[in-house]
Amino acid sequence: MSKGSDDHLVEHRTGGGALLSGGFLEVHRDNIRLPDGQPATREYIRHPGAVAVLPILDDGRLVLVRQFRYPVGRVLLECPAGKLDPGETTLDCARRELAEETGYTAREWAFAGEIHNAAAYSSESIWLWFARGLEPGPQRLDTGEFVEVVTLDATELDALAGRGELPDVKTLWGLLWLQRWRAGAWPLTWAGAGEHGSL
Amino acid sequence: MSKGSDDHLVEHRTGGGALLSGGFLEVHRDNIRLPDGQPATREYIRHPGAVAVLPILDDGRLVLVRQFRYPVGRVLLECPAGKLDPGETTLDCARRELAEETGYTAREWAFAGEIHNAAAYSSESIWLWFARGLEPGPQRLDTGEFVEVVTLDATELDALAGRGELPDVKTLWGLLWLQRWRAGAWPLTWAGAGEHGSL
Repeated sequence: MSKGSDDHLVEHRTGGGALLSGGFLEVHRDNIRLPDGQPATREYIRHPGAVAVLPILDDGRLVLVRQFRYPVGRVLLECPAGKLDPGETTLDCARRELAEETGYTAREWAFAGEIHNAAAYSSESIWLWFARGLEPGPQRLDTGEFVEVVTLDATELDALAGRGELPDVKTLWGLLWLQRWRAGAWPLTWAGAGEHGSL
Repeated sequence: MSKGSDDHLVEHRTGGGALLSGGFLEVHRDNIRLPDGQPATREYIRHPGAVAVLPILDDGRLVLVRQFRYPVGRVLLECPAGKLDPGETTLDCARRELAEETGYTAREWAFAGEIHNAAAYSSESIWLWFARGLEPGPQRLDTGEFVEVVTLDATELDALAGRGELPDVKTLWGLLWLQRWRAGAWPLTWAGAGEHGSL
C-alpha cells in the first residue's frame, strides 16, 4: 500500500510525557505537530506488547481459555495470551503463557504475525504464534488468576464466531489465520522453539 | 460455550472510581472481589464504543482509509471507523463515519457483529457494519484529521494480511467476515438504513 511519501499523514512529537504511571496502566499525553504544521495533543496507553498463542492438538482441536474480563464484564473465550515481560522475546512469552494458562508445552512453533488492536489510543502490539506437538502438563496460574481451559475444533470455533459468540478479536484473528493457512493461502514456518532466532 | 454457572470466574466490583478524566481517555481503578473472595484492583479505560464499516463498491472493491496512528507510530490501512457520539445508534455512527471519512453514502446496510479489542484494559466494543450500494460524495474531515481514501479488492486485502501488511485488527476481522459471508457460511441481512430498528 506504499504510495511514496506519507508526509501528508504523519504526526511528529514535540513534547509531553506521562499523565499516569506506577499502577497497571501507563498513560501519556504528548504534544504533536500535525501534517499541516498545526499543534495538537495525543493521549494514549504505553503498552509493553502482548503475545497470543493458537495451540493445535494432534487431533486438530484447539486449546483455548475462558476468563472473566472485568472491563467488559463478561467471560470471554480466548486463545492463551499475555503481556511481554521486560527483555522477553515474543516466543519466550508465548511458551510461558501457554504453559502457565493451559499447562501445555509444544514441540513446534510458527510465527503468524503482529497486529495493533487499539491503535487509536494504545501502543499495544499482539504477536500471534501457532503451537503444535502439544504435551499436557499442570496449569500454573498466578495467585488471583482464574482461567478455565477448553478444547474445541475449528468448525465449532467458526460457528461461534459467525453467531457473535467469539467477541475476542485476537482469537478471531487466530481463526482467520488458521483458515487461510489450512487453505494453503498463508504460509507458516514450523520449527522447534530453539530454531526461531530472536523473534 | 456455556458450561452452567461461571461463578468460579466472575469478579465483582466493590468500589473505586475515576483515576483520570476530562481529557481524551477516561481511566478508572475499581476495587473488586475475586471469585475466591479475595480483594484486587482493576485499572481500565472506559470507552464509549466504536463502529467500523466495510464498504463494498458495486464492482466488489472495498473502500478503506489510510491514516497515521500516533500511539503505534505508523500509517495504518483500515476500514472507516470512529467512536460513538452520545445517544447515537451504531448504524447512525456507521453512516456518519463513512460519510465523513470517505464521502460515500450507502443504500444498504448489514450488521456483522460486535467485538472487544482490548478486553484486558478497555471497555471498548467495536460494532461492524457492511455497506453496499455506495454513492460517492465529498469527504468531510474534522479540522486536524488527515485521512486518505483507497480502494482495493478482497484478494489484494487478503494478500496484504497474509504478508503482515494489514496490522489493524478490526479490518482483519472485517476481512474474515467478508470471506465467510462470501463462502455462504456466515449470513448478513441487508436492508436500508431506516429498516434496521434500533441497532
